[in-house]
Amino acid sequence: MNKIKVGVLGATGMVGQQYIKLLAQHPWFEVAYVAASPGSAGKTYRDAVSGRWQMAFDVPEKVADLVVQDANNANLAEKKCVFVFSALDMDKQKTRELENAYAAIGIPVVSNASAHRSSDDVPMLIPEINHEHISIIAAQRSKHGWQKGFVAVKPNCSLQSYMTPVFALLQAGYEVRKMIITTMQAVSGAGYPGVPSLDMIDNIVPLIGGEEEKSEMEPCKILGHVVDGHIVNDESIKISAHCNRVPVVDGHTACVSLEFGDKKPALDEIKKIWRDFRALPQELNLPSAPLQPIIYREEANRPQPRKDRDADKGMAVSVGRLRQCNVFDIRFVGLSHNTVRGAAGGGILNAELLKAKGYFD
Amino acid sequence: MNKIKVGVLGATGMVGQQYIKLLAQHPWFEVAYVAASPGSAGKTYRDAVSGRWQMAFDVPEKVADLVVQDANNANLAEKKCVFVFSALDMDKQKTRELENAYAAIGIPVVSNASAHRSSDDVPMLIPEINHEHISIIAAQRSKHGWQKGFVAVKPNCSLQSYMTPVFALLQAGYEVRKMIITTMQAVSGAGYPGVPSLDMIDNIVPLIGGEEEKSEMEPCKILGHVVDGHIVNDESIKISAHCNRVPVVDGHTACVSLEFGDKKPALDEIKKIWRDFRALPQELNLPSAPLQPIIYREEANRPQPRKDRDADKGMAVSVGRLRQCNVFDIRFVGLSHNTVRGAAGGGILNAELLKAKGYFD
Amino acid sequence: MNKIKVGVLGATGMVGQQYIKLLAQHPWFEVAYVAASPGSAGKTYRDAVSGRWQMAFDVPEKVADLVVQDANNANLAEKKCVFVFSALDMDKQKTRELENAYAAIGIPVVSNASAHRSSDDVPMLIPEINHEHISIIAAQRSKHGWQKGFVAVKPNCSLQSYMTPVFALLQAGYEVRKMIITTMQAVSGAGYPGVPSLDMIDNIVPLIGGEEEKSEMEPCKILGHVVDGHIVNDESIKISAHCNRVPVVDGHTACVSLEFGDKKPALDEIKKIWRDFRALPQELNLPSAPLQPIIYREEANRPQPRKDRDADKGMAVSVGRLRQCNVFDIRFVGLSHNTVRGAAGGGILNAELLKAKGYFD
Amino acid sequence: MNKIKVGVLGATGMVGQQYIKLLAQHPWFEVAYVAASPGSAGKTYRDAVSGRWQMAFDVPEKVADLVVQDANNANLAEKKCVFVFSALDMDKQKTRELENAYAAIGIPVVSNASAHRSSDDVPMLIPEINHEHISIIAAQRSKHGWQKGFVAVKPNCSLQSYMTPVFALLQAGYEVRKMIITTMQAVSGAGYPGVPSLDMIDNIVPLIGGEEEKSEMEPCKILGHVVDGHIVNDESIKISAHCNRVPVVDGHTACVSLEFGDKKPALDEIKKIWRDFRALPQELNLPSAPLQPIIYREEANRPQPRKDRDADKGMAVSVGRLRQCNVFDIRFVGLSHNTVRGAAGGGILNAELLKAKGYFD
Repeated sequence: MNKIKVGVLGATGMVGQQYIKLLAQHPWFEVAYVAASPGSAGKTYRDAVSGRWQMAFDVPEKVADLVVQDANNANLAEKKCVFVFSALDMDKQKTRELENAYAAIGIPVVSNASAHRSSDDVPMLIPEINHEHISIIAAQRSKHGWQKGFVAVKPNCSLQSYMTPVFALLQAGYEVRKMIITTMQAVSGAGYPGVPSLDMIDNIVPLIGGEEEKSEMEPCKILGHVVDGHIVNDESIKISAHCNRVPVVDGHTACVSLEFGDKKPALDEIKKIWRDFRALPQELNLPSAPLQPIIYREEANRPQPRKDRDADKGMAVSVGRLRQCNVFDIRFVGLSHNTVRGAAGGGILNAELLKAKGYFD
Repeated sequence: MNKIKVGVLGATGMVGQQYIKLLAQHPWFEVAYVAASPGSAGKTYRDAVSGRWQMAFDVPEKVADLVVQDANNANLAEKKCVFVFSALDMDKQKTRELENAYAAIGIPVVSNASAHRSSDDVPMLIPEINHEHISIIAAQRSKHGWQKGFVAVKPNCSLQSYMTPVFALLQAGYEVRKMIITTMQAVSGAGYPGVPSLDMIDNIVPLIGGEEEKSEMEPCKILGHVVDGHIVNDESIKISAHCNRVPVVDGHTACVSLEFGDKKPALDEIKKIWRDFRALPQELNLPSAPLQPIIYREEANRPQPRKDRDADKGMAVSVGRLRQCNVFDIRFVGLSHNTVRGAAGGGILNAELLKAKGYFD
Repeated sequence: MNKIKVGVLGATGMVGQQYIKLLAQHPWFEVAYVAASPGSAGKTYRDAVSGRWQMAFDVPEKVADLVVQDANNANLAEKKCVFVFSALDMDKQKTRELENAYAAIGIPVVSNASAHRSSDDVPMLIPEINHEHISIIAAQRSKHGWQKGFVAVKPNCSLQSYMTPVFALLQAGYEVRKMIITTMQAVSGAGYPGVPSLDMIDNIVPLIGGEEEKSEMEPCKILGHVVDGHIVNDESIKISAHCNRVPVVDGHTACVSLEFGDKKPALDEIKKIWRDFRALPQELNLPSAPLQPIIYREEANRPQPRKDRDADKGMAVSVGRLRQCNVFDIRFVGLSHNTVRGAAGGGILNAELLKAKGYFD
Repeated sequence: MNKIKVGVLGATGMVGQQYIKLLAQHPWFEVAYVAASPGSAGKTYRDAVSGRWQMAFDVPEKVADLVVQDANNANLAEKKCVFVFSALDMDKQKTRELENAYAAIGIPVVSNASAHRSSDDVPMLIPEINHEHISIIAAQRSKHGWQKGFVAVKPNCSLQSYMTPVFALLQAGYEVRKMIITTMQAVSGAGYPGVPSLDMIDNIVPLIGGEEEKSEMEPCKILGHVVDGHIVNDESIKISAHCNRVPVVDGHTACVSLEFGDKKPALDEIKKIWRDFRALPQELNLPSAPLQPIIYREEANRPQPRKDRDADKGMAVSVGRLRQCNVFDIRFVGLSHNTVRGAAGGGILNAELLKAKGYFD
């Protein structure tokens, strides 16, 4: 099969680089278009990332020779690619307008940016949880008068460490009423240069600007329902998050305390639910889907970022330390790879879902 | 004034070294006796710690020349010192018996070890919180038939990051019902060699054996009351703790979510309570007492271990990020120096309190 | 083709684990036998490594179910495997005797241990440099009266960062007279638990016991010649090494200053020599051989451990910053993966060479 | 005595902050004037450093309330301070002009900036080595027509780890012919935000732009001689430096190999020379002078940054691992605190020397 030509917006940044890396051997997609800020436009991709390439992996030759285009001009992408991954890192309002501009000329946008996450006609996808939210795309297209284009986004990276395990319990019939979460997040989440080393040697920083708010609001939309062309949030879970930056390269860890509704599963049942959990990406056998989305580890001191972040290509969530909570019902530790599952890998899985469902036809 | 001669048991270990360092310039106490395991006995202290001295501070000459004694033989300490600091690191049962043996020959033991923490006639002191627990010593002496000797202990290091702030609120009349705490603890807490570097480079470990249990049980005793020669625990607060090891040398950080009883203070009132909090160590002007036990920092990204652990000689608790909690009432971040306030410094403050109250006379 | 059954001695240690990992998908070899200290003997490999498995990769099922044997009893390995990889970590004299015991019963030993490195009838192989040293095996067998068994070793891990680049220059006809080397070595080289985290957070340690001596002596043997059943050292290069431990998980970096003999290559010629360098492992297309043994990086700030250690499966040496030296002739930075190329991967490449040359027939 | 009012240029940057910290309790000097870039001008110092204050020490109240002035306008400093410390971080040409502008209006400049280091009428001082270079100030004043103003500078921070030990040997009559040095430098040397944490977790960077050149050239001037109103460089030592950035907060470490001239001291004699070394700052009893400028440590694994950088208020050089070199004559490891001795502390010691010699009268 001929591979589908894709573009990457914000291709020179950290998430953009991760897209280039993860797409290097992709069975369905090939990078045919790279765009970034005007400062990089006109250079080859090789030159544009020279001195700031962060991957432990060399730039693939084919991409290295592509000339970087100005991401601000959507028209340049026309006929160059079927859809684009957006890793834009600019003002929210501008990002929304620019992503819309690509959609308007018929280029779907699969975005990592946070700009459109609260737009109620834009699906915010974790395919194992809310793949049916893609049905909103029809309403989105109709509202904007777009034929082929659309925007779909993914949620913030820190959620991924615990949202799928929580969803698995919900789906098994256990209401969740309250969650208190403390995250210990990797520095790669802040891009490059990102977090200064003076803050991360013999230190942690108990603040990540905006992260707690996202962690508390985005689950409501992810767990929401499509009603009359809108995604209506589900606000049944009260969530409180403490977000910390720790000296880890990749891999966000979360300590979660959770209170169920009246029906409370036993610990063994929870482990079984997690281990048995499979969803549409697994059924469709999507190339980037983890075989087992939730890996429960019985070792007392796991999951750990360096040992577990790469589980199943970096796309699985690793969970451990499930135990009773003295205040709520249960406690556990979740971990996922923030720049794979939580960023470019998550975006690619979204695109695979959309492709499988015919949204790029 | 002549300084009081003191001994240090377990003097060659990490906490023992911290005692040697902190006592080097102490106005009331001078180290006259050092004891450790039989393997070190007979060597000068200088030789005994050669190759494992961890302080960024050289061994004081006077202590360096002391000959290390076998800590297992309490009789050796007789007439060598008025009381001992215990930093013993051995089996609990053996530690209890050994600390009792020192007490039995008239040498009070001010201990860092966890062995006696659950003994209901042994005070577990944070002088700013429960100095009145020292009155139990009379019952303890009477029960054992001891004249001058006794045992007093301090709680686990991780508590110190939040117990004083919580106590200040209780004392101000605000009942606390529930607390969910996640700690990020420094490696010095595990001694030397302690935590392997392979676990702490680009990694965190979401388990510290026994630490969560201590964090959940010890507050009950600290907040308890002396009744008929026993300390009766206060179990009114439900506590749940997640304890993590992070790549920080010194300084334990805690993310705390807290639910009050019916009466709920405003955020500004809480800050005022914390800033104004003073207790007996401050009134008595004890040499190691922090001038202001709780330092509230308004900067959005504080407290941080490297910047705040040394606040007021490492004896103050730094608090920040006080904000509403979506699930409970408030959230905040607390930090204290685990080997100063949380270990040797805390032990020294206990001894200063006991001295001021005449328990070494 | 049926895979060759191999054993791993010291299988539960860090290097042993790396062997298990790297052999999991090996096209020629399969692990059929695991042996370790008596304390692990009798347990399944899964249980024996429980709590100390360090790889970011789960124990392969087939190996997990093997019962660990006592490595001290060579006879147990008879008929269980064609040859063994030795990752023994014990007293040198005992290691030599034990490796000999395996050889004596017809089981060749491909060793990572340092015990036999100075035995003048034991080849110390870097296949790209001195593959012809395997011819000494005939003399070794004859001396000991062994039929099939023999011992072959690999050199210390820190050499690998620069010895192949230096050899490439020698081979191209440029005499090297003097080398001053400073290494910055990863903590994985010390095994687990190995280097305490208190030594590696906000710190470096300017000493690795025995490492400087190995770095200065082993090159003489590697560059030596087989003469009358002995390997005669080449002592033409004067070498001085400073070895430091730094907070890096994997990857040893070396800063090298080098003085040539009278004939001095230009910098561009050196880069060409390095880039063009190929040797027997490449000609034989050995499964673990890097395609390009020496990768020269033009970026001003490379090689770096995290970005370059995994180059070509962790088997290539990355070199950069070639420039004139004010004191000698040239300076450069070399880097290689200490637990892959420098340990288990290097051992496997040695075994592949020996297999290809018929030494396991 | 009334303290001398001093100003700090570039007061909001990392070195500027270190000046504020170190001068907080200074017996001779008090900070009366702070200046920085126009962006900070007009704010109180407290507000100007809010969010970027890096010291584990709060801004002193008196300085916190000072209004930051525009450093580009030297005239603003007139009558506000007797002399200024320059921690300017801008273009070299502009720095030179600006430092000259302060000198021109009668305000001496004691500078950390590199701008004037190669000016042959500007002394580059390490007071223990070349205090007599201050005599060039007369020529400098005369050349520029300045009455009271002048510029004096300090060398690059990385030199401090070994130049004083090398000088002590020269002074004892041992010619040094060649030095090959590899440094492992702390991140604080790059200021804040400085080195990205992605470069310093599980990594080192074998390049610090411009540092090797400074390390090779500046010693020539430091060891030079004042001849006819010029400092004439001493180029008798051939120096080659490899400079690396490592994950250490403070403290530059250097591995040094050194070749003497014909006369070669024994190792014990070298240690004696180092331990006995005293110089003018010690004779004058300058407040910031270390009591013993060179501390030799006999422990096999020292000096180490975290344990030794603070030796004697961070002003002493710690040396260890003195041993024979196989290529040159000796090898050793040197360490000094890069932001104290190597930056603000060094600047303050220079000012103390100049004050003691009457240059601020």
